[in-house]
Amino acid sequence: MTGIERHALVVGVRPEKREEYLELHSAVWPQVEKTLSDCNVTNYSIHIVENMLFAYYEYVGTDHAADMARIAEDEVTREWWTHTDPCQVRIVPETDLGAVWQPLREVWHLA
Amino acid sequence: MTGIERHALVVGVRPEKREEYLELHSAVWPQVEKTLSDCNVTNYSIHIVENMLFAYYEYVGTDHAADMARIAEDEVTREWWTHTDPCQVRIVPETDLGAVWQPLREVWHLA
Repeated sequence: MTGIERHALVVGVRPEKREEYLELHSAVWPQVEKTLSDCNVTNYSIHIVENMLFAYYEYVGTDHAADMARIAEDEVTREWWTHTDPCQVRIVPETDLGAVWQPLREVWHLA
Repeated sequence: MTGIERHALVVGVRPEKREEYLELHSAVWPQVEKTLSDCNVTNYSIHIVENMLFAYYEYVGTDHAADMARIAEDEVTREWWTHTDPCQVRIVPETDLGAVWQPLREVWHLA
């Protein structure tokens, strides 16, 4: 009940890269997970149906933008993204700042 | 770290019913929320982007199907659904059992 921020995001997966994406996520690199944890990201799950991916995570720090920037500075995470980025494609036309993963807005929460 | 099951679901919202759906969820009926809680559903959030809704919840009971059936037996919840159902439309073509909300499969989780 403290300052947990819930974040939800959606992206498409390229059909020809679907299996590769799943395989990558069957063994996410430990350093990628450590960086997320170090940057106050917790209870993170990614879900798939057809060629659509949804991510949900909880942010327990105090400056989401700063922590996201810290994640993006991690060399191993950047290397990881060179594998995952080609699997993904934007599926929501309207976007902010060119991000591929599109944020959703929370409309309701039950604790 | 006990037996929490994470569930993710997706559905479309009819464009002409989008505002109505948001208004309904600005004040979900207390009995609807109580029934969910009584049936071991927790940390439930619904998110929107464009005309797509994404739901995430955690199930902390021992028989998800039985608890879902209990929810569906609650008269107030059924009445609530007469308001929300017309707002929703299936967006994933393949489906199980005719459900409108489509379940996603978890591909990765970071605690």
